Amino acid sequence: MSKVLDQINKPNDIKLIEPGKYSKLSREIRQFLIQEISKTGGHLASNLGVVELTMALHLYLNFPEDKLIWDVGHQAYVHKILTGRKSEFATLRQFEGMSGFPKRKESDCDAFDTGHSSTSISVATGLAKARDLSGGREKVVAVIGDGALSGGMAYEALNNAARMKSNLIIILNDNNMSIAENVGGMSSYLGKVRTNTKYTDFKGDLENALKKVPKIGDKIFSKLKQSKDSLKHLIVPGMLFEDMGITYIGPIDGHNISQITTALQSASRVKGAVLIHAVTKKGKGYEKAEKEPSKYHGVDPFDIKTGKSLAVNKPRSYTEVFSDTMIKMAEEDDKLVAISAAMPGGTGLSAFAEHFPKRFIDVGIAEEHAVTFAAGLAVGGYHPVVAIYSTFLQRAYDQMSHDVCVSRLPVIFAIDRAGIVGNDGETHQGIFDISFMSHLPGMTMIAPKNEKEFVAMLEFARNYDGPIAIRYPRGAAYTGLSEFQSPIVYGKSEMIFEESEIALIAVGSMVETAVEVRGFLKERGFDVTLINARFIAPLDEEMLHQTVKNHRIIVTLEENVKRGGFGESVSVFLQEHGYTSVTHINISLPNEYIEHGAPAILKIKAGIDAESIVKKVEKVCQGFIR
Amino acid sequence: MSKVLDQINKPNDIKLIEPGKYSKLSREIRQFLIQEISKTGGHLASNLGVVELTMALHLYLNFPEDKLIWDVGHQAYVHKILTGRKSEFATLRQFEGMSGFPKRKESDCDAFDTGHSSTSISVATGLAKARDLSGGREKVVAVIGDGALSGGMAYEALNNAARMKSNLIIILNDNNMSIAENVGGMSSYLGKVRTNTKYTDFKGDLENALKKVPKIGDKIFSKLKQSKDSLKHLIVPGMLFEDMGITYIGPIDGHNISQITTALQSASRVKGAVLIHAVTKKGKGYEKAEKEPSKYHGVDPFDIKTGKSLAVNKPRSYTEVFSDTMIKMAEEDDKLVAISAAMPGGTGLSAFAEHFPKRFIDVGIAEEHAVTFAAGLAVGGYHPVVAIYSTFLQRAYDQMSHDVCVSRLPVIFAIDRAGIVGNDGETHQGIFDISFMSHLPGMTMIAPKNEKEFVAMLEFARNYDGPIAIRYPRGAAYTGLSEFQSPIVYGKSEMIFEESEIALIAVGSMVETAVEVRGFLKERGFDVTLINARFIAPLDEEMLHQTVKNHRIIVTLEENVKRGGFGESVSVFLQEHGYTSVTHINISLPNEYIEHGAPAILKIKAGIDAESIVKKVEKVCQGFIR
Repeated sequence: MSKVLDQINKPNDIKLIEPGKYSKLSREIRQFLIQEISKTGGHLASNLGVVELTMALHLYLNFPEDKLIWDVGHQAYVHKILTGRKSEFATLRQFEGMSGFPKRKESDCDAFDTGHSSTSISVATGLAKARDLSGGREKVVAVIGDGALSGGMAYEALNNAARMKSNLIIILNDNNMSIAENVGGMSSYLGKVRTNTKYTDFKGDLENALKKVPKIGDKIFSKLKQSKDSLKHLIVPGMLFEDMGITYIGPIDGHNISQITTALQSASRVKGAVLIHAVTKKGKGYEKAEKEPSKYHGVDPFDIKTGKSLAVNKPRSYTEVFSDTMIKMAEEDDKLVAISAAMPGGTGLSAFAEHFPKRFIDVGIAEEHAVTFAAGLAVGGYHPVVAIYSTFLQRAYDQMSHDVCVSRLPVIFAIDRAGIVGNDGETHQGIFDISFMSHLPGMTMIAPKNEKEFVAMLEFARNYDGPIAIRYPRGAAYTGLSEFQSPIVYGKSEMIFEESEIALIAVGSMVETAVEVRGFLKERGFDVTLINARFIAPLDEEMLHQTVKNHRIIVTLEENVKRGGFGESVSVFLQEHGYTSVTHINISLPNEYIEHGAPAILKIKAGIDAESIVKKVEKVCQGFIR
Repeated sequence: MSKVLDQINKPNDIKLIEPGKYSKLSREIRQFLIQEISKTGGHLASNLGVVELTMALHLYLNFPEDKLIWDVGHQAYVHKILTGRKSEFATLRQFEGMSGFPKRKESDCDAFDTGHSSTSISVATGLAKARDLSGGREKVVAVIGDGALSGGMAYEALNNAARMKSNLIIILNDNNMSIAENVGGMSSYLGKVRTNTKYTDFKGDLENALKKVPKIGDKIFSKLKQSKDSLKHLIVPGMLFEDMGITYIGPIDGHNISQITTALQSASRVKGAVLIHAVTKKGKGYEKAEKEPSKYHGVDPFDIKTGKSLAVNKPRSYTEVFSDTMIKMAEEDDKLVAISAAMPGGTGLSAFAEHFPKRFIDVGIAEEHAVTFAAGLAVGGYHPVVAIYSTFLQRAYDQMSHDVCVSRLPVIFAIDRAGIVGNDGETHQGIFDISFMSHLPGMTMIAPKNEKEFVAMLEFARNYDGPIAIRYPRGAAYTGLSEFQSPIVYGKSEMIFEESEIALIAVGSMVETAVEVRGFLKERGFDVTLINARFIAPLDEEMLHQTVKNHRIIVTLEENVKRGGFGESVSVFLQEHGYTSVTHINISLPNEYIEHGAPAILKIKAGIDAESIVKKVEKVCQGFIR
């Protein structure tokens, strides 16, 4: 039987499909998603949840004239299918393949590049204002999840949207989940609205009852009508949004295309900002994902039948080491508390939460609050560990400075996904944290070379009385060099192999690469020292003074952009001390955003893989050694 | 007649005052504030507005056991008076004198150091959680203005406060103002609640009416009771907060001590988070400030009778130049729009707003939204100028990267108050922006030497198609060197005086200092080149190559911390190119937070005043020149 999906080959093609075939199309899209993602990996559950919503939006909007902003953006796969990118799914999230997020350079139907949470309403208000100023008539729609709505930025944008009175539709895609289960006051509010059909029942009952009471009933009814705000509270769910000045429509069934269409049409008639509350099911149509949406949020290639990951047995990750160590430390130290911003699973804190429910707080997608909340806990005598991915910690730059460092509070920042992260691309690489954190007065920054050192560093941080950040990469924890376990001493690096000529000074994840680099160079007959930096800030100046004495080349290695990175602080040191006898090779990432792709490929492209590094070193060596 | 205020000499002394004397005390406090601030300058209107509120809080709380967090903190003067710091007001905001903000090191009654907006609820939730974990019984109270409530962080914290169910009191100090008039959906909501007494009238009417209808009335009434949420909507203002899970009390008169006390006592009986909505008048008790609260928000010394500032006629500030230039540019360019985050006056955009009301948007205290909103405008074809003080722009680090730089959008960041700001201290100095912005891929950063160049740079930025930031200091615009007006060329510095031996390369505000330094050095017989850096990022490498050739000393000068600053990028350049013939002196701020005090004093202390710089240069010169 021919597929309806075959008729969708470019933007707006869906408008040619007869309504009777919508449900067949939605099934085909789900099948397509499950099949494609089972091969490439990607974001599954969130996309399965927005099939009908996306279809309805594509029936309603004209692309590329109208503007559709997907918050976060990993749920834009159906949008990609409906805008003619079906055939590119084979390359999803692969190097030079299709991005897993909206990308303006990929299609003019992608209105904005997203990745981080809670930005869509801000972008949409900007686009709506631009349209109004230029006298345009295009529609502007933002789709935001209930998880993303816990981010303060979304609320700031709602505030502004209410004030601007520009036409703008906000779809609240409410699946009661962020990546993990949703938390917080707004979430429980939406829960009440979502489930409480009494609202509408009650409205009918009241009106009927009042009408039966001749005079007085009429009087009350008209009084109710007069007091419009109060009446609304009686009969309108979503009053919280109405209170802010946003027209609320809902809750509607986010899997019912005609309901969504009707809501969109109603919204079109309203002047100003409208919020349509669509209730959806994350993972809809794939039973396993419906049951465990968190597990099927972002997946590796998997077997469709069993739902099992096809990824070969993964070695223990830094995240897992963090998870275990946090529990051990908390058993000994009742002042230790852990904070997550909607990522208990991703950061490895789920187990901690089970063991120490009172000492674990998931604040929702709210990195800013997470950090200042931690500051409050620290002033209150506790020792908080804030576990946030490097890229998301960018949100809390001011809070780390203003609320933690100004008061030199003992807050531990566990920075997971530091360095190249891979398939999520530009918006998710953790390649700036050294640049935006190491200049904060009083902030100590460290990075472990391997699994064992990570444990030791967490223990060190626990005993340190001040702001301290540990950055560690995504994925497998390095287990090499396990015989090197000298105690962590504040501000001091660790000598691994002490030789001469060339000194490799590597930060965290790059120690493993440096071991490889050293192997190559040793084969070529060089004497090579290997130093594990351990401390990014403060710099181990004593070690540097020593190293300069008996080396001709210093190679610094880090997974961070060059500008503001560890290597530059070594450059500055060398320049300030007038150390001219030594040549410094700075191995770091270029000052650019790094696209999506497998980390191994991206590292080669950035020139921070062992082979590229060896070539650079050899080139310098030709100049004067041997 | 003896003063009641004389009896207040240490924390909790107010509890010994008999209630009949409260109103006399409040008058005396106001008189004290007006008199003291008229001499020292400081935050006037906000403190006059919280006299009774602070008195009531001090009657209710025990210090230092109980924890009171002032959001922003510039309204904590009355708290300082009531905790025994009356005599220190003579040194308010002066170097080594009393801070204008809560400071833990100043008093154990100051629970947290604040300065930026919207952090208090986060800190309070942290303190409340710490108390609960340790089994403590102290009270935790946050006082937040309605302006600060527009910051997303406050909403994130409300979300978490609702979820945690810890006892916590939030006082909403609602004066319908931030520094300027308040804007946004939340603000208009509060306005409705504040003024709508119909809520309570209506409740009574409805209940009476229903009781008169025997059977059916009862039925409806019981139905209303059943449907608790709906009933609440009918009779409870502040339902927005209740919807989130925060118990709401109010609105109450924030100048009525017994009303506040009653509300606090009610709040004590509630489990979980309670918000008390206190309506206050900014500037209360000083007529001029009541009429123009924005003008009397932060003041220089003034004449109490006339209200006039005693500051000598101030020269034209960069802010004023910005104001005028924005209007001129907008007249020629209808794509230019301006965005402020609750600072139309402070940033100089008030006049622009009057001239181009449609092209000016004040988003409220919401820096994150401001930047991403600008990104939306830029994608929509407009050219937004986001005017935010350096210290507050820290809030939008992620948005500048993720929403502006990733897409290389033409957004202009007008960074006022860059460098040492002075009397507001640690939390307000603008000394990190070079460090947190210049590493952003694709971000151009420039700084003008004087008034005319600032105009030229704004014009240059307007014609530049990408993210660009202009940093300029607080206060008087430098008018010297006005004969140097070479056109701005991308990435190029400006040669002012070309000589040899010593090269001064100065950034923005430091060009003026460099002129002075050069004068001193010339007197001592040195040949001194003066280069205006103009571009912080990208670095003018061609100029540096040239400069190295015929100078023995390069002095870089900037008002930014050393780490990650302009000077360090010059260090890196010199080191990478192996330029060993030249000595580099890096004049920048130490990697520390800088306390409050007059900028001139702070600059001397930091060693960036002309005299200190000359000394440093001479010391180096002794080594090898002459």
